[in-house]
Amino acid sequence: MSVAAALTLLAPLPSTAQGGGEARNKAVIQVSDADPVKWNLALNNAKNVQDDLGGSDGVDLEIVVYGPGIGMLKAGSPVASRVADALKGGVKVVACENTMKAQRLVHADMLPAIGYVGAGVVELMKKQQQGWAYIRP
Amino acid sequence: MSVAAALTLLAPLPSTAQGGGEARNKAVIQVSDADPVKWNLALNNAKNVQDDLGGSDGVDLEIVVYGPGIGMLKAGSPVASRVADALKGGVKVVACENTMKAQRLVHADMLPAIGYVGAGVVELMKKQQQGWAYIRP
Amino acid sequence: MSVAAALTLLAPLPSTAQGGGEARNKAVIQVSDADPVKWNLALNNAKNVQDDLGGSDGVDLEIVVYGPGIGMLKAGSPVASRVADALKGGVKVVACENTMKAQRLVHADMLPAIGYVGAGVVELMKKQQQGWAYIRP
Repeated sequence: MSVAAALTLLAPLPSTAQGGGEARNKAVIQVSDADPVKWNLALNNAKNVQDDLGGSDGVDLEIVVYGPGIGMLKAGSPVASRVADALKGGVKVVACENTMKAQRLVHADMLPAIGYVGAGVVELMKKQQQGWAYIRP
Repeated sequence: MSVAAALTLLAPLPSTAQGGGEARNKAVIQVSDADPVKWNLALNNAKNVQDDLGGSDGVDLEIVVYGPGIGMLKAGSPVASRVADALKGGVKVVACENTMKAQRLVHADMLPAIGYVGAGVVELMKKQQQGWAYIRP
Repeated sequence: MSVAAALTLLAPLPSTAQGGGEARNKAVIQVSDADPVKWNLALNNAKNVQDDLGGSDGVDLEIVVYGPGIGMLKAGSPVASRVADALKGGVKVVACENTMKAQRLVHADMLPAIGYVGAGVVELMKKQQQGWAYIRP
């Protein structure tokens, strides 16, 4: 093989790290306020992103709920039906188990069909390290 | 060409993805609160970043205004003159047209010289994918 | 050296920009609200991340305090002892000197052992460019 051929083989490949147009759209949305206005805003944000990018086929979304925001995902939450709609639409919605422990909440206290992560903040950090955008409404 | 010469040609180029010191400084600043204190803080943040990095030659800044924050960019906004100063200084300031539609606002209702994006949240996501830092005052 | 050997030498190295599992965990935590609830939340977040990832050996954390948040780091702050604990635990805590100037604060007015940066927002931007995740409690 010639050096020229080797150089051709080494042409840069598309990389998510370079933010190219072909990279998968991915965003984590943080909810950490005890404020139903913020809960609705987070859910609006998720819906707008999906509407704009072709639904769950066009974008991966995860709403990470922790700290004072945890009420958003408790059974009887004022946004329960909207959370159910988001889940049906392919948005991942996860509660922080550290926060739940501190507030003596167990899975049975929470909305059905949601997911769980050990530590909400760690989840937000890991997702960003994996190239997900961060949105805090 | 020798292999050694080929290797020299292939020495890594500066890449924004690697966060090296030579990468262009770029940040999106989010405004999504209906709170003039936050609007002033966002404008202060933009000014401080420019002052520190040599003005618009040293850093690309874009303020993305959406949701409950949209009042910042309506005609008659309490920060109208500061927004005009930011625009003159080379800061891009954009309003979310999704939010405007929901509030029945048209371009004529807004401050002059600002820009527009279809969905503020999508803009924030895309910019991060392209290597822009995210600041939410 | 053969072209094949050259290609081997050029195999991609692990890169923090690719968010691989081996990348060092790093996060900046922003405090810019004049709200002790947020100050405690930021300190809780830092503690939870360290607990989850093996202390300061497992993760680099920096809390950047600026704007209306600066009271968190003034002598006599209601969270002074928690800030001291975070510093002892290896969390970096830095105050924005731009903010301090605007409020006529000098180093002697601040908590001991903290660090300083010229502009908090620039610090948040630079850290993200270097691959740090961003958390705004």
